Amino acid sequence: MIKIGIFGATGYAGYELVKILERHKSVKLAFVTSQSLAGQWLDELYPQAPHLLLIAGETAPLNEVDVVFLALPHAAAAQTAVAALNAGVRVIDLSADFRLKDVETYEKWYGVTHPAPELLETAVYGLTEFARSQLPDAQLVANPGCYPTSVLLALQPVLAAGLPLVGPLIADSKSGVSGAGRAPKQNTHFVTVADNFAPYKIGRTHRHLPEMEQGIAAWNAAAPPLIFSPHLLPVPRGILSTIYVPLAGSPDEAELRGLYEKTYANEPFIHLLPAGQLASLAHVIHSNRCAIALTLAGNTLILTAAIDNLVKGAAGQAVQNMNVMMQLDEEMGLV
Amino acid sequence: MIKIGIFGATGYAGYELVKILERHKSVKLAFVTSQSLAGQWLDELYPQAPHLLLIAGETAPLNEVDVVFLALPHAAAAQTAVAALNAGVRVIDLSADFRLKDVETYEKWYGVTHPAPELLETAVYGLTEFARSQLPDAQLVANPGCYPTSVLLALQPVLAAGLPLVGPLIADSKSGVSGAGRAPKQNTHFVTVADNFAPYKIGRTHRHLPEMEQGIAAWNAAAPPLIFSPHLLPVPRGILSTIYVPLAGSPDEAELRGLYEKTYANEPFIHLLPAGQLASLAHVIHSNRCAIALTLAGNTLILTAAIDNLVKGAAGQAVQNMNVMMQLDEEMGLV
Amino acid sequence: MIKIGIFGATGYAGYELVKILERHKSVKLAFVTSQSLAGQWLDELYPQAPHLLLIAGETAPLNEVDVVFLALPHAAAAQTAVAALNAGVRVIDLSADFRLKDVETYEKWYGVTHPAPELLETAVYGLTEFARSQLPDAQLVANPGCYPTSVLLALQPVLAAGLPLVGPLIADSKSGVSGAGRAPKQNTHFVTVADNFAPYKIGRTHRHLPEMEQGIAAWNAAAPPLIFSPHLLPVPRGILSTIYVPLAGSPDEAELRGLYEKTYANEPFIHLLPAGQLASLAHVIHSNRCAIALTLAGNTLILTAAIDNLVKGAAGQAVQNMNVMMQLDEEMGLV
Amino acid sequence: MIKIGIFGATGYAGYELVKILERHKSVKLAFVTSQSLAGQWLDELYPQAPHLLLIAGETAPLNEVDVVFLALPHAAAAQTAVAALNAGVRVIDLSADFRLKDVETYEKWYGVTHPAPELLETAVYGLTEFARSQLPDAQLVANPGCYPTSVLLALQPVLAAGLPLVGPLIADSKSGVSGAGRAPKQNTHFVTVADNFAPYKIGRTHRHLPEMEQGIAAWNAAAPPLIFSPHLLPVPRGILSTIYVPLAGSPDEAELRGLYEKTYANEPFIHLLPAGQLASLAHVIHSNRCAIALTLAGNTLILTAAIDNLVKGAAGQAVQNMNVMMQLDEEMGLV
Repeated sequence: MIKIGIFGATGYAGYELVKILERHKSVKLAFVTSQSLAGQWLDELYPQAPHLLLIAGETAPLNEVDVVFLALPHAAAAQTAVAALNAGVRVIDLSADFRLKDVETYEKWYGVTHPAPELLETAVYGLTEFARSQLPDAQLVANPGCYPTSVLLALQPVLAAGLPLVGPLIADSKSGVSGAGRAPKQNTHFVTVADNFAPYKIGRTHRHLPEMEQGIAAWNAAAPPLIFSPHLLPVPRGILSTIYVPLAGSPDEAELRGLYEKTYANEPFIHLLPAGQLASLAHVIHSNRCAIALTLAGNTLILTAAIDNLVKGAAGQAVQNMNVMMQLDEEMGLV
Repeated sequence: MIKIGIFGATGYAGYELVKILERHKSVKLAFVTSQSLAGQWLDELYPQAPHLLLIAGETAPLNEVDVVFLALPHAAAAQTAVAALNAGVRVIDLSADFRLKDVETYEKWYGVTHPAPELLETAVYGLTEFARSQLPDAQLVANPGCYPTSVLLALQPVLAAGLPLVGPLIADSKSGVSGAGRAPKQNTHFVTVADNFAPYKIGRTHRHLPEMEQGIAAWNAAAPPLIFSPHLLPVPRGILSTIYVPLAGSPDEAELRGLYEKTYANEPFIHLLPAGQLASLAHVIHSNRCAIALTLAGNTLILTAAIDNLVKGAAGQAVQNMNVMMQLDEEMGLV
Repeated sequence: MIKIGIFGATGYAGYELVKILERHKSVKLAFVTSQSLAGQWLDELYPQAPHLLLIAGETAPLNEVDVVFLALPHAAAAQTAVAALNAGVRVIDLSADFRLKDVETYEKWYGVTHPAPELLETAVYGLTEFARSQLPDAQLVANPGCYPTSVLLALQPVLAAGLPLVGPLIADSKSGVSGAGRAPKQNTHFVTVADNFAPYKIGRTHRHLPEMEQGIAAWNAAAPPLIFSPHLLPVPRGILSTIYVPLAGSPDEAELRGLYEKTYANEPFIHLLPAGQLASLAHVIHSNRCAIALTLAGNTLILTAAIDNLVKGAAGQAVQNMNVMMQLDEEMGLV
Repeated sequence: MIKIGIFGATGYAGYELVKILERHKSVKLAFVTSQSLAGQWLDELYPQAPHLLLIAGETAPLNEVDVVFLALPHAAAAQTAVAALNAGVRVIDLSADFRLKDVETYEKWYGVTHPAPELLETAVYGLTEFARSQLPDAQLVANPGCYPTSVLLALQPVLAAGLPLVGPLIADSKSGVSGAGRAPKQNTHFVTVADNFAPYKIGRTHRHLPEMEQGIAAWNAAAPPLIFSPHLLPVPRGILSTIYVPLAGSPDEAELRGLYEKTYANEPFIHLLPAGQLASLAHVIHSNRCAIALTLAGNTLILTAAIDNLVKGAAGQAVQNMNVMMQLDEEMGLV
């Protein structure tokens, strides 16, 4: 049994981790922490949660665990990662702290000095489908952001194929409200959200942009800039990204589909939809799947990609990464 | 033109007042206040709001208005009421401060010393349909609570008829989230409320209970206690109360219906539904109407009563009260 | 491995059965039927469904299964039950056909001649917690209705204790839209339901009333009539029943709580909430649990009871019944 | 007083017309029709509707009205338009029948022979802001589609300015469920829609595409093709279109904003948002406004445009057209 600790178990991603790990056959949950709610029980916050005592992060017994998951705010996560690694514990970090390889980019977008830039080089960016070979030896995994997961999984085959692109990539993404976090704010008040739909931070201003462009550049150095338009959907969970890829020449739909089939043929969590179907939240809610569909309109490849932001976009992918890291069946706890 | 000021214009009831009064032909809005947001513009908070500057309550020019509406927290409302009355301004108070005639009951349920108990006697409880004769001379109107409006309008005819009751009155009420106020809290977070439905403060523990029992006792001194069970609905607005009245003997449905028809025959805002229909939120949302339906099940009269909590349950009834008070057409601004 | 067939797999309860049985370790799904959609695949209807071919009920190979679940309309279910029993297959029927012991009551409320009244006597009413001793030998189980499950589980301890009651029992129940079935109708259109809340068939007119009164009478022959008020909630799933029990004398809350603790102490699927808490949909959604809370208000015991109408109120309880019937661990597939 | 008839008053657009025209000071509603529900009353369908008898279209007294609104299915609308025009009645048609100037395009996209192609030339495309000079003399107005209204109003200033475009125009649009019509279908069932979000007919396959491209070509003959991706939002009403315009060279945001300010300076129903704000449904729900915001990301102009699909996208714009046609104040009944 792998012994696990969760830092930040009261946020939505942290609680989703608890739910997944509770039914995972090969792990044992040793502790769950909360900064602001230490001393309370998790089921005081979530009525279906197991009866677990929340402890303060500082008091967490790192010597009793093999792996920790960090569902903490950025900067706090990096500090905890250092402590855990120093204690010989492997780390899967759901924050943004180790996703960007370039420390200046991180500091510009997140507005803080990076607490542990020396770890950036060895951290593995855990988009599982493309990180498998690195995970078994990883001490530190940077779990991808929710929006980037949907966008990068959808783009990888067409980008990696090196087809020429003739204009910006556009990702028009829509996310459920859990993506905005559990802390109550005016913009997550039920009365603000219900019956509404609103874009925010569109263009090139959202923090997930550099993370996506880093992934894009890794697969296709010649790729054009990305335009990213997030919107807030009146649903609790789920992300749908509608992505526009402007191809040169006369792209062939069957050929494009072939790229995706080849890439994702044996992927348990990628659900490539047949021609004529489109991805929707209903394809993925409460699952670790990413549903992807291709539609060709003239020279533009339109990708629709859906994930559950808390599962494949956070806790599920984190457990998928742990499974690969610990050489367990990749699907354990996730189906 | 009647000159109006609104204290507390940024809460849901206060903003609903702004919307109604903006299209009212006989009033002019002189000022709108906010304690925490003074200096901001109302349309920064509500995208369809008029472009009105929010001023601090202390700086409000009471000498420029004829009537003020108070959409303030309790205790703060009473203090503002005193200032306004001293300035010769008539007051319609949407808080609970002047609803309860008994100061001890108020202090017990609201946990504060009443700032102006001397005003309790002259304050008119503004359940408009039953306060019309008192309103033209009223200097201070206590606008009823949202739940009490739905329950009292539904109960009045059967209670005032003096029919013997053989058990507790039960009001099982369901309210939209705007009833919980605009300040973001965990229990009004979209993710908490969506797909959920939850009772709260049921039995004899909600602050609206004494207000309802005061109204009940005024119509029927022999009435049994009230059991009141509020629930939170995943909708922005609306209240539906399902009310159980245990009658003695063999009540006759036609006779009961006759009581309601007689009481509400000429009421512009009471929508008495024909036999076989039931009240729902769809009957009343965004209107000042109260829809009421009667169903007899054995000896129990079941009343379903629906209002929009922000209109007939708050701002709409407040304007209805102002219309009667100022001897305008009662429906002005409300249809 | 127990071999299973599901009749009526495309309705909401039928599909919920598929989902539960797919992950049940001791069963193998042999066939799924649909009258109107035979020849289609289940995942054409539900994007996360397994890829199962829907066959016509008449062509279902009864000789290949041990147990069938019937998620069919009433009357059709009874006919299929006869065929299955004749083929030596055990039956768990989710329809109303075998819930009422009295054929006249059935025919009055359902408006059809009962296709197999001779089976009524031996059918076991499968409110699992109170049917355990009968299930291992049962050939035919009548799975309880969704509303009755919530109401009867909440009422059993207080009724069975034989405390005197001084007025009608009242169950004010609220259900999510899946309770109205998958066939599109005006009253399940998104635009009709969203932002709305509506009572329907209140008093003594809903078909679940005789089922509840049959259960009540079995525990307490002196119980008064039941008043039952269903309402439609703008949520996909879940039932919350707020139940008013008028007790004689001066009931003692601790004593009442004791009755519930004693009855439900070792029940894996009954979640008796501690004093001060109330049941909500969030306690039970997507689980087989029934959450029950007690609140005493004067002489009235208020029970709040929540279930997922598709799980404990239908497919989950059906599988729970199968587990007991087949002498498996009662929780298999359900946690 | 202008005498009005509404054909097809029971659909969502038709009922919205009733609501608007009921409070319009200069019109009198002479009749409302329904094909399938003739003989019923409108308030049997909509609980807040006025008590109007629905008559069959064939029996509508055309000689008693000045203007008719057609909220009918395509083809049926054209046939009724012919009858009305022959009776000397002016027609505002909310269907697609007279929007496309080219009969072949119409017949290809709508799959029917056009019942009255001879009227196509004189029909005025009623995007009011750009049709004002033609409306006073129009006998037949083709009211724009909901999606085209949001997209064309957003695109006009930049297109008409003739700036060179370097790739396809992309409109990623999201609509509330009322856009799918009142007839109950599987894809408008509450359980299908709630918690979901789904694209449909994306690329170049939706019927509103040729309508939008016709408008685009009229303003900019050199405009590239349009890619149009509609999505279904879990809200009752509202459309938000996020539109990507790929400009050549180094576009200047202030200059672009200037184009919009000049075009829409005095438009009562165009709400041009200040820099830094984005359009949302909350800006426009239940109003006749179109909110438009500009964001520049590199060379791509991102327009966010919001309307209420039933008001500015249907009934509201129809009344706005009638107001201009009949030389009334353009805002009558709409504010």
